[in-house]
Amino acid sequence: MIKAIVFDLDNTLVDFMKMKRRAIEEAIPAMIDAGLKITHEEANRIIDEIYKEQGIEYQQVFDVLLQRVLNKVDHKILAAGIVAYRRAREAALIPYPHVYSTLNQLLKMGIKMGILSDAPAKEAWSRLAFLNFHHIFDVVVTFEDTGERKPSPEPFKKILEKLTIKPSEALMVGDWVERDIEGAKKIGMKTAFARYGDTFDTKQHNADFELTDISELIDIITEENKL
Amino acid sequence: MIKAIVFDLDNTLVDFMKMKRRAIEEAIPAMIDAGLKITHEEANRIIDEIYKEQGIEYQQVFDVLLQRVLNKVDHKILAAGIVAYRRAREAALIPYPHVYSTLNQLLKMGIKMGILSDAPAKEAWSRLAFLNFHHIFDVVVTFEDTGERKPSPEPFKKILEKLTIKPSEALMVGDWVERDIEGAKKIGMKTAFARYGDTFDTKQHNADFELTDISELIDIITEENKL
Repeated sequence: MIKAIVFDLDNTLVDFMKMKRRAIEEAIPAMIDAGLKITHEEANRIIDEIYKEQGIEYQQVFDVLLQRVLNKVDHKILAAGIVAYRRAREAALIPYPHVYSTLNQLLKMGIKMGILSDAPAKEAWSRLAFLNFHHIFDVVVTFEDTGERKPSPEPFKKILEKLTIKPSEALMVGDWVERDIEGAKKIGMKTAFARYGDTFDTKQHNADFELTDISELIDIITEENKL
Repeated sequence: MIKAIVFDLDNTLVDFMKMKRRAIEEAIPAMIDAGLKITHEEANRIIDEIYKEQGIEYQQVFDVLLQRVLNKVDHKILAAGIVAYRRAREAALIPYPHVYSTLNQLLKMGIKMGILSDAPAKEAWSRLAFLNFHHIFDVVVTFEDTGERKPSPEPFKKILEKLTIKPSEALMVGDWVERDIEGAKKIGMKTAFARYGDTFDTKQHNADFELTDISELIDIITEENKL
C-alpha cells in the first residue's frame, strides 16, 4: 500500500537544467550588449567554471564573472545580465509535461505528497511558489531542515515524519540514482526513477519503477494499492 | 545654452511609488493565501513601518514582516510574497507617459543626458536595464559613486564632470524640491520641477521651469537654445 509520494524537485518536477541554460543563454548576450567584451563561448566557459566551484544554486555568478573578466563589477553590465536572466527564467521555469494533471489526480486518489529537495530553502520555495506548487505540497523538506543532503537518511526520515508515514508506505520519485533512489532504498522506501529528467545519461538503477512520463505514476499506484 | 539634461530616476522617469504600492498590494494577499494570519491593513501598516525604519529600498521587508508577525521566517509564505511582488513589479515598472519619445527626441537634438539617483547602484541599474534605459543614458551616478546624497553638491559635481559640462549648461529635472532642485541650483545648474511625479503635494519650488508632462522639455530646450 502506497499512501504517500515524495518527489525530488529539480529535474523531477521541473526541468531545472533547461531553465538555467536558457536563462544564461539570454543573460550573456545582454551583458555583451551592455558593453562586456567577451565571446559568448568564453562567457559560458567561465560561468560553468563558477557553478562548478560554487554549486549550481550560487546567486552571485555574474558578479564573479565580471570580477574575473574586468577585475571589477560594472553595475550596468551586471544589471543587464540579471534582468535578462530573470526574464528568461520566468518564461522557462515550467513543470514537465503532465506534472499538474498527475499531481491533481494523485490528490483525488488521496495520496499524500511531499517534496524533498537538497536546494536551499529560499530558492526551493521560490520555485514552488512561482509554479503554484506551494498549495499542492504542504510538506516540503529542504537542505536547511536537516543540514544534510540526500542520500543521507536524515532528510528522508524528516519528511516521512512530517507526512506521518512509514517508509514502506512511501514512494520516492527522483532523477538522481545515487541520491534519490539509493538514499530512499536504504531506509526502506519504494522508489521510482524519473528517466525523463535524467541529465547524467544513467545506465543502471535499482529503482522499483522507471518513469518515462510522470503520469505513469497513476497506474503504478493503482496497481500497487489493488493488492 | 543647455547642452545636457540630468534626470533624477525615481518619480521623475518612472513612477516608483506606484510600482512599489502595486507590488506590495499583490504580495500581501499572496502571503495571506499561503497561510499568513493577518489582515491586509495590518500587513500594510507593518510594511510601511519597516520601510520608514529601513528606507524604501530595503530588500528584506517581507523577512522582517514575518519575524514581527510569526517570530520566524516561514519560507513558504516568504516565497509566495516575493514571487507575487516580483511579478507585479515587472508589470508596474513603466516610465511616465512620453518619457521614451521625449528622450529619443532629445537624443536627436544632440542633448547629452545623464541620471543622478540616490538609489543604491544595484537597484538603480536594475531598473534602468529593465526599462532599456541603460542604452540611452551612458552617464549614471548613484549613491555609491560619491557616498553622498542630493542635495550635497558632490553627486551633482560628479555627474557634470562625467558629462564634461559646466553647471550653467545643464538642466536638472527632478520631483524632489529639497534634494533635486535646491541641490542643483546651489551649484549653478538650471532646474525643472517634475510636477507630474510629485508625491509630497509640493506647494512651492524655486525651479526655473515646471513640467506637467516630461515632453514639455522639448519646447523648453528649443526656446533656451534659440538665444
